[in-house]
Amino acid sequence: MDSANIETVRPPVAKPDVSALVNLTAADMVKVNSLITARMQSEVAVIPALADHLIAAGGKRLRPLLCVAAARLCEVRNDNHHKLSAAVEFIHTATLLHDDVVDSSSLRRGKVAAHLIWGAPSSVLVGDFLFARAFELMVETGSLRALDILSKASAVITQGEVLQLMKAFDLNLSQADYIEIISSKTAALFSAASESGAVAAGASEDKITALYSYGLNLGLAFQIQDDVLDYQGDAADLGKNAGDDFAEGKSTLPLILAMQATKGTQDAFWARTIGERKQQDGDFAMAQDLMVSSGALDQARALARAYADKARASLSLFEPGPWRTALENLALYSVDRQK
Amino acid sequence: MDSANIETVRPPVAKPDVSALVNLTAADMVKVNSLITARMQSEVAVIPALADHLIAAGGKRLRPLLCVAAARLCEVRNDNHHKLSAAVEFIHTATLLHDDVVDSSSLRRGKVAAHLIWGAPSSVLVGDFLFARAFELMVETGSLRALDILSKASAVITQGEVLQLMKAFDLNLSQADYIEIISSKTAALFSAASESGAVAAGASEDKITALYSYGLNLGLAFQIQDDVLDYQGDAADLGKNAGDDFAEGKSTLPLILAMQATKGTQDAFWARTIGERKQQDGDFAMAQDLMVSSGALDQARALARAYADKARASLSLFEPGPWRTALENLALYSVDRQK
Repeated sequence: MDSANIETVRPPVAKPDVSALVNLTAADMVKVNSLITARMQSEVAVIPALADHLIAAGGKRLRPLLCVAAARLCEVRNDNHHKLSAAVEFIHTATLLHDDVVDSSSLRRGKVAAHLIWGAPSSVLVGDFLFARAFELMVETGSLRALDILSKASAVITQGEVLQLMKAFDLNLSQADYIEIISSKTAALFSAASESGAVAAGASEDKITALYSYGLNLGLAFQIQDDVLDYQGDAADLGKNAGDDFAEGKSTLPLILAMQATKGTQDAFWARTIGERKQQDGDFAMAQDLMVSSGALDQARALARAYADKARASLSLFEPGPWRTALENLALYSVDRQK
Repeated sequence: MDSANIETVRPPVAKPDVSALVNLTAADMVKVNSLITARMQSEVAVIPALADHLIAAGGKRLRPLLCVAAARLCEVRNDNHHKLSAAVEFIHTATLLHDDVVDSSSLRRGKVAAHLIWGAPSSVLVGDFLFARAFELMVETGSLRALDILSKASAVITQGEVLQLMKAFDLNLSQADYIEIISSKTAALFSAASESGAVAAGASEDKITALYSYGLNLGLAFQIQDDVLDYQGDAADLGKNAGDDFAEGKSTLPLILAMQATKGTQDAFWARTIGERKQQDGDFAMAQDLMVSSGALDQARALARAYADKARASLSLFEPGPWRTALENLALYSVDRQK
């Protein structure tokens, strides 16, 4: 099963134009990136070195971009959204550093994971440092409401990660459990990013709620697509190891759906490879085959698309315009992307 | 060298009456402890289980007690100091959880360290959870200034811990480096606790500054005494392994002073035991002997006492009364305690 074959299974969609959003936010993101660089500095040299390893590797900067776009959609008139965006990226980076320690991951954003270079202790402490710096930035905005949103989101994220840690090897994880986990570990920061962007702009309550809903559903769509790509992409494209979730026995949506669809015929395969994690050459290819032939990947993509549609629908109360269109396209991109 | 011999070297001091402070703060601490218990709850069962393992083990609750006492000394008229005290204890607990992972410590507060029961990943994530909950509590007070103080302190603490991690095996660590490390990793939270307590009470700027200074110097005295006790106490009394610092090759003040005092005569001993960490039976007893005979432990105790005196002097602008006396005695206790 090569990726070209998998490609043909996907329904044809219009290529979403995410470059418009990147262009619209370019001037803001220059300021956000300056703040990120300035605030990760420390006299203790290992801190900026380690932080820069991960932050300079880039990633999509989706979360700060989301905060900026939400603020702009709500016609922000001050600079608070830059500080909140930098704070959101710091919280995200802190969770990545800790996640990679927790999961013993070897690759992140196409580079060797920081804990393999500087050691797990440094990764843990630099994560803590970035988390603290995130709160310093938020305090500077003077917005208790933004602080409230982002501190609550931070607690929810860690709960989601603990829940995932507890249930990673649970063969009986339900789709509802999975949605609960990704709502917490991923979507909570997306929704907090867009909601706090709206708050920074002093938006009306209905707009704040709409952007909270947009971020939440975008985050769900984004994470499901991420989990789909783990059975579809290859390591070079994705910047991390495709097949990682399978190798770790992580119960993601594609796996849950494939196990349901092959119940009675492939139980022994899943019990061995996921339940006992006794994997051998060819198992991942076999799992990929089953994902496609059972329709599990298609089902997962359809659910991702439904969340993306819900995200787009959340924007209906905004006047049509370039910012709204760009965010609508971001929702399409979240499920259409191949890495 | 038994501990009785070491005891006789200490100058006689009046037994500080710390029970007065405990009695004065009792009603407040009941409320703080209720908040701590309520806010560490989560649907994810492992979170309160792990947090409770450490929090219920007690410890001295010095930092929340300090926050309460500072607020009371400044005649607080609301309940914000309870939330800030709980937040301070959560930040402290989070750093302990992460520290024990970073240092691979086996004992904490006389109990098996949490990461040895629930695993390092859970300890990392529950630390993150408590840190996030700390900020939720602070946000609820509505005090941006308290948030500012405690978020900055949190960043400083992690920098101190990274610095300590980098320099743990540095035979050339100076006394100034050591003071910088403990100012960050320990005294920063003490000063933030007392300063934010004063802020919660709406105290005048000179009183806020005085309580910042009190906390900072108390924290320095406390940490130096902690480091002295690591060469003096035994595991059962201290609730952690006496000799841990020596075994880890941690450059604390007693070690720095002992190496200076025995320069030219014991260099090979320190180079082997600390520099290379090649330790054998009898080395710790030898180190303890050198600490006493060289006067290093006495020098360290004298410095601790100087900081404690500075802490007490910071309180001179307050009217005499039971709260001021109790805090003065806490400073004496910090250097007089034997565990």
